Amino acid sequence: MSTLTIPSDLPSVAEDCEQLKKAFDGWGTNEKLIISILAHRTSTQRKLIRQAYAELFGVDLLQSLDKELSSDFEKVVLLWTVDPAERDAILAHDTARKWHPNNRVLLEIACTRSSLELFAVKQAYHARFKRSLEEDVAYHTTGDFRKLLVPLVSSFRYEGPEVNMTLAKTEAKILHENISNKAYNHDDIIRILTTRSKPQLNATFNHYNNEFGMLSDLKTDPEDGFLAALRAIIKCLTNPEKYFEKVLRLAINKTGTDEIDMKQIKEEYYRRNSVPLERAIAHDTSGDYEAMLLALIGHEDA
Amino acid sequence: MSTLTIPSDLPSVAEDCEQLKKAFDGWGTNEKLIISILAHRTSTQRKLIRQAYAELFGVDLLQSLDKELSSDFEKVVLLWTVDPAERDAILAHDTARKWHPNNRVLLEIACTRSSLELFAVKQAYHARFKRSLEEDVAYHTTGDFRKLLVPLVSSFRYEGPEVNMTLAKTEAKILHENISNKAYNHDDIIRILTTRSKPQLNATFNHYNNEFGMLSDLKTDPEDGFLAALRAIIKCLTNPEKYFEKVLRLAINKTGTDEIDMKQIKEEYYRRNSVPLERAIAHDTSGDYEAMLLALIGHEDA
Repeated sequence: MSTLTIPSDLPSVAEDCEQLKKAFDGWGTNEKLIISILAHRTSTQRKLIRQAYAELFGVDLLQSLDKELSSDFEKVVLLWTVDPAERDAILAHDTARKWHPNNRVLLEIACTRSSLELFAVKQAYHARFKRSLEEDVAYHTTGDFRKLLVPLVSSFRYEGPEVNMTLAKTEAKILHENISNKAYNHDDIIRILTTRSKPQLNATFNHYNNEFGMLSDLKTDPEDGFLAALRAIIKCLTNPEKYFEKVLRLAINKTGTDEIDMKQIKEEYYRRNSVPLERAIAHDTSGDYEAMLLALIGHEDA
Repeated sequence: MSTLTIPSDLPSVAEDCEQLKKAFDGWGTNEKLIISILAHRTSTQRKLIRQAYAELFGVDLLQSLDKELSSDFEKVVLLWTVDPAERDAILAHDTARKWHPNNRVLLEIACTRSSLELFAVKQAYHARFKRSLEEDVAYHTTGDFRKLLVPLVSSFRYEGPEVNMTLAKTEAKILHENISNKAYNHDDIIRILTTRSKPQLNATFNHYNNEFGMLSDLKTDPEDGFLAALRAIIKCLTNPEKYFEKVLRLAINKTGTDEIDMKQIKEEYYRRNSVPLERAIAHDTSGDYEAMLLALIGHEDA
């Protein structure tokens, strides 16, 4: 899925470590050198570099990065350097502990990762934070959001293709009844969204759309944060690329932007906006941060 | 933990398969032969036998057992033949689908297994039933029990030894306040019991017992099934051997009994009842079922 460009004459892991060390040493930090290495290595290669770096210099590469870099640029390099499960764990931890209804990171991680990927995030969470993801989410959220988010991050969804059409019809009806009554926080809505497999939910939503009109009843109150979360969950479960394209579009049209890692999103972005994502990002960021983001999405000049 | 007695001159897996086939063939079934093999093999050995049996005779050993055996004896042999995670998955599935407040199996599995064991149960559940454990529990339970059991079976608890004493005090107080107000189904009681690590909960319960008297407030209404479930959860989390000894004692004093697999329970049983568990079981069961149970707990004559 990634749009990484890896050099054909890939340096050895030891060489990469030496170059990174050089980038940190001396006057100032050579951000361009850091980008030229880390932004052009796969997740596995970055893992090997981090291991070798610790062996060679007796210090965690993350610590060196942390000391030398700052701000948005630092954050994106750090997140990029850890492996995907640890990255999600860090993002989930930050979000859970400074939780706000408008922050979508928890539900994005819970709904767009595979069941085994989500399990790897939970293991990384244990290892890094000495507690569980469920524990922090349950502790830092309240009310309806707790009722929704705790099962969402806890669930180990079945991933087989089997679909029970009778059940899909029954549960589409249950969803519709509760939505019609504006009982958005009803136990059954939460149960269905947080436990059913994605193929089963797709069947349920399709039936809903055919029978009762697009799940758009959920837009009745545009100011309601809980409804917005339900909409985001439904989108993340059924069409994550489209969901992330929109997140990106809104982020770029506002201020700041987000890390990008997926070819599909780039394509979806272009399809929807008729402007290449690279140009939009270059317009919206600057300096090392821009260079890193452009390198990550595979822009040629980076 | 097991009290299995394995023969010193262990036959090959192929020999075991041949003998099992022989026990099924001909007039009637040779239950003694089945017991002499399956009750005296470790979980790994039984797994190998099941694989080899399928390769040799083109049929799952479980199916052969299912065809030839009946009643309690059949059930215990079947459960004994699958590996522990699959056994828990089968028990959890049966319980979830015929759920009754007095059935403790779900909470026993959720609270007495390690986090990784519980995760293996969830994987076995996917493989065998083409759906998730959470999904079935959420679908078949209602009200307060759903609120309690879904997070209980979903949680991936942290297992490190770290304990936060300040948190233990705060949460002991939260438990006490809600218990005093008879708000037994309060979100915070459920959150604490279902997400905190076992060492952390131990510290919380100890603090509770020191400050507010034994968690015995939970006995105010002995008829209340929800309170009884909370008591069982607290016991399973803190002292599973003692919990299972009591289950066993009550089961033997009533009718029927339960499968036994743990040396510690046997010891706890003797310590508490001054009668060896073997004698109690022999007194309470008969025939093949008795022979199988005695073989499983490692009685010499079996």
